[in-house]
Amino acid sequence: MPMMFDVRSASASYRVVSEWNAFASSAPAMRDGVVIADVYFAHELASRGVVSIALQANEAAKSLDAIGSVIAQMREAGATRDTHLWAVGGGTIQDVAAFVSSIYMRGISWTYVPTTLLGMVDSCIGGKSSINVGSFKNIVGTFHSPTAVLIDPTLISTTTVEQRIAGLNEAAKICYCRGANVFAEYLSLEPNGDLAPNELEAIIHLSLRAKKWFIEIDEFDRAERLLLNLGHTFGHALEGASGYQLGHGVAVGVGILCSLALSRELLSRSPGGAAASLEGHVHALLGALPDLPGILEAIDVGQVFDRLKSDKKHESEHYRFVIFDANGVVQVTRLPKDDGTRAAVSTAIQTTLGLLSR
Amino acid sequence: MPMMFDVRSASASYRVVSEWNAFASSAPAMRDGVVIADVYFAHELASRGVVSIALQANEAAKSLDAIGSVIAQMREAGATRDTHLWAVGGGTIQDVAAFVSSIYMRGISWTYVPTTLLGMVDSCIGGKSSINVGSFKNIVGTFHSPTAVLIDPTLISTTTVEQRIAGLNEAAKICYCRGANVFAEYLSLEPNGDLAPNELEAIIHLSLRAKKWFIEIDEFDRAERLLLNLGHTFGHALEGASGYQLGHGVAVGVGILCSLALSRELLSRSPGGAAASLEGHVHALLGALPDLPGILEAIDVGQVFDRLKSDKKHESEHYRFVIFDANGVVQVTRLPKDDGTRAAVSTAIQTTLGLLSR
Repeated sequence: MPMMFDVRSASASYRVVSEWNAFASSAPAMRDGVVIADVYFAHELASRGVVSIALQANEAAKSLDAIGSVIAQMREAGATRDTHLWAVGGGTIQDVAAFVSSIYMRGISWTYVPTTLLGMVDSCIGGKSSINVGSFKNIVGTFHSPTAVLIDPTLISTTTVEQRIAGLNEAAKICYCRGANVFAEYLSLEPNGDLAPNELEAIIHLSLRAKKWFIEIDEFDRAERLLLNLGHTFGHALEGASGYQLGHGVAVGVGILCSLALSRELLSRSPGGAAASLEGHVHALLGALPDLPGILEAIDVGQVFDRLKSDKKHESEHYRFVIFDANGVVQVTRLPKDDGTRAAVSTAIQTTLGLLSR
Repeated sequence: MPMMFDVRSASASYRVVSEWNAFASSAPAMRDGVVIADVYFAHELASRGVVSIALQANEAAKSLDAIGSVIAQMREAGATRDTHLWAVGGGTIQDVAAFVSSIYMRGISWTYVPTTLLGMVDSCIGGKSSINVGSFKNIVGTFHSPTAVLIDPTLISTTTVEQRIAGLNEAAKICYCRGANVFAEYLSLEPNGDLAPNELEAIIHLSLRAKKWFIEIDEFDRAERLLLNLGHTFGHALEGASGYQLGHGVAVGVGILCSLALSRELLSRSPGGAAASLEGHVHALLGALPDLPGILEAIDVGQVFDRLKSDKKHESEHYRFVIFDANGVVQVTRLPKDDGTRAAVSTAIQTTLGLLSR
């Protein structure tokens, strides 16, 4: 069923539309703008007469070094400050497009067409971009919301089970953080990686409406929206330590389990509320990935901790984590940079990787 | 005399303070932040115990390729999203600092200490940054106002006569665009490149208050602020065509004269009002630069026109120029991309360069 709502944040107001075949029906409009697309969709677009700047969706593509070439291609395609940019792809394409549209001639308008479930349930709204510089992942970025987000659930048929599970991890996180009722509604949709696009559509809508609340109340990551970092401090470190064999959404799933394990260390008991349901659900999602145990087994816990220490969310004297309290409610906590914290965090990672590697 | 005012724009409110010896008295505060400084001031700062990231003030320093290294040095210096950045230098340092502070961990706060007259009278407020990508000058940038601007007129003693004249060209432009009364007040201060810092101080204050009006009414360059592009479309093209032998402020002075010449072509008469005073004043300023005629003689008019065509301010069917009407009032105009425009623009450049090369 088509769905439409507006995100009204401090810096911008924009429309989110979810409609079957929105991708195909947008091709004529794309011909009037400049398009950045994942290589797969660049071919699809070419067959519809749309020329695009094609990018491989990998870490190198979202590095500052690669941005210059995209900017030059936009200029050569005749883009002015009045040109509208279209972005077709997953999170990497979104990061590149959001960043270049925020800096090209000091900012141009853009429309995002997410092609992965992760993009559809989560990253397509919020306006954040993250770009790598050398070995520093996601160290630069901007807030630059698209003018419109166009979701076409039929595109999910182009994705793998792993990509769907990656998206579901983020959707589960958002719905959990939004509160018990929303998470219960999410679980009632029986999310799993084998669902068809029409079954996933309801999950997309639920997750986006939950995320909209966080963005509207705290666009710039000062308070409530920080909770959505649940699983991300661990997740980013795990991604890096796996040499990016772990995709972002899957790493976040593992990160959520690490966060639950850390909460258990700090509380000396299991967090209550719906935390056990979240844990069971994420375990079930990750359990459907046959390659995951092998990847996790090869990860060095010491290296995860080293990477985790340099996460940009920490402060000078404290690490910052999103953890669960005794009632299972998520909260941002500061942990001192001392041996006790180091031991608790290392144990949390070790326990989690051990459980999942089996 | 110390001066202080607030700029209240749509995106931010920040304080501008002008005070003798503000540079020296800020050193202790700089030690708590991260500092980006022109190499000359990096040495000055080192002698005061302030470590800084030193940059050569040239076009290469403000290219996207060079930004990654600054970001990496900031990270290595321990900058987090709560770190305050200080920038000490002229326009190039300001461009780099404004850009990196807008993207570093999605934005950090910064203070700007301008060290050139051009920085003090003009660019220090407004929040714009401009960064080069390959051969495309100023093609990317952001709006990211500093938290504070600290002007120390004693620093003018470190600049050359050419740098002062560069600043005066921009000050003359701002005051002229602000209206006849402000320009008359400007001329009454008898601006020239030999003025001492204490005489230039009044010009700095007058120019900044005039510019504040444009920023507060039109921060994002949609209407009134566009007038401040007077001389810039020609100026940027001249800078490039001279192989950057012409500095920005001097090129803008020549550009103002080109714009007057173009207005004369389009009006078939000289613009009235105070336009003749502006022309005489800019001629007098540029006349004090002994190397200018030689640089201008070597410039190829065809190359100026080629560069001018690719200015980012143009639209697909029209060139956009700031010109003078019959009453000498500046306005943004659209000229069709045809032979007539090409002839008028080429004549304007040729006439102006001819007059100044003598």
